[in-house]
Amino acid sequence: MPRVVDPVERRRELAEAVWRVIRRDGLEQASVRNVAREAGLSMGSLRHYFDSQSNLLAFALNMVIERIEQRISALDLQADPRLRAERVLAELLPMDAERQAENEVWLAFTARAQADPELRALRDRGYDVLHAGCRRLVQDLLGAGASTDDVDLQAERLHALVDGLAVHAATRPDRNGPERMAALVSRHLDDLA
Amino acid sequence: MPRVVDPVERRRELAEAVWRVIRRDGLEQASVRNVAREAGLSMGSLRHYFDSQSNLLAFALNMVIERIEQRISALDLQADPRLRAERVLAELLPMDAERQAENEVWLAFTARAQADPELRALRDRGYDVLHAGCRRLVQDLLGAGASTDDVDLQAERLHALVDGLAVHAATRPDRNGPERMAALVSRHLDDLA
Repeated sequence: MPRVVDPVERRRELAEAVWRVIRRDGLEQASVRNVAREAGLSMGSLRHYFDSQSNLLAFALNMVIERIEQRISALDLQADPRLRAERVLAELLPMDAERQAENEVWLAFTARAQADPELRALRDRGYDVLHAGCRRLVQDLLGAGASTDDVDLQAERLHALVDGLAVHAATRPDRNGPERMAALVSRHLDDLA
Repeated sequence: MPRVVDPVERRRELAEAVWRVIRRDGLEQASVRNVAREAGLSMGSLRHYFDSQSNLLAFALNMVIERIEQRISALDLQADPRLRAERVLAELLPMDAERQAENEVWLAFTARAQADPELRALRDRGYDVLHAGCRRLVQDLLGAGASTDDVDLQAERLHALVDGLAVHAATRPDRNGPERMAALVSRHLDDLA
């Protein structure tokens, strides 16, 4: 009896195969052929789920954004602003193996999108999600009395810090481990409040 | 009479052709063939200067680091620490077209180096140059009384901010122009001092 395949699950597995190829061999190797081989499927089977490499890559990139959004929406957001900020930022930074994978995939896509207009809209969506998240945290930390200009500036500053730390965690993991990133974020939030 | 070609100049021209291909078409398109075409040379002529694509890419990446180092060493470093910090950081950030080009090339290499051990040593050198520069600025700003731990933490924080801003300037130039980056850096230095 053939195994019944849940199409949602199969698409997720294929996206994870894309991630593995990107992390091991680079994004330029994530062809339909290589991803099918990585997932143990024929190219014909893969094309049943994704009709182009572009769609496959876009789905795999979107999964990074969706996983981050899911983790953040699962957090208890009733906590105080400082604790909430630390918890949300910990979900954005590559604090464990799963988030390291997401981070490396995201960095590869960010670079590729520079010369690939089709991917740029998704990259921009990722920027917007992260920026809006940072802005909400900053707004809550600064309180109702803060000016819009100040909230905007501090939101971009926090966002840049998070993205810079993510780059450093990928390039120099020996010097930028989870504890170090947490200490830096904590210091930044101290200064902000 | 054939044009006399300065080999140093020719290598520089070829590196600039690499940059143009990377920015327009992506790093995966920077083959020896495509770069030779971009520079208006035969593949044979290109191989006279670079015997492999790997050497060509490494030279083009190294030129980013060298240009930044040259601009910083040309600055008047007798100024006061705060002014010095602003001027050095302005050389690291993509404040004009030349530095935007360097920044986009650097981001492409950063992503590629993740899956290419040959390029990783150069990327790490870039990290080290920037990190050491940030550390010197922070040391001078905090003064002799600051603890080593504090200098280290603030150096990484400044370095992450600079790299995050550089990523944002490449991905969302409309929202992260030169004036905005200068204002963010200035605010960060205010808080540091």
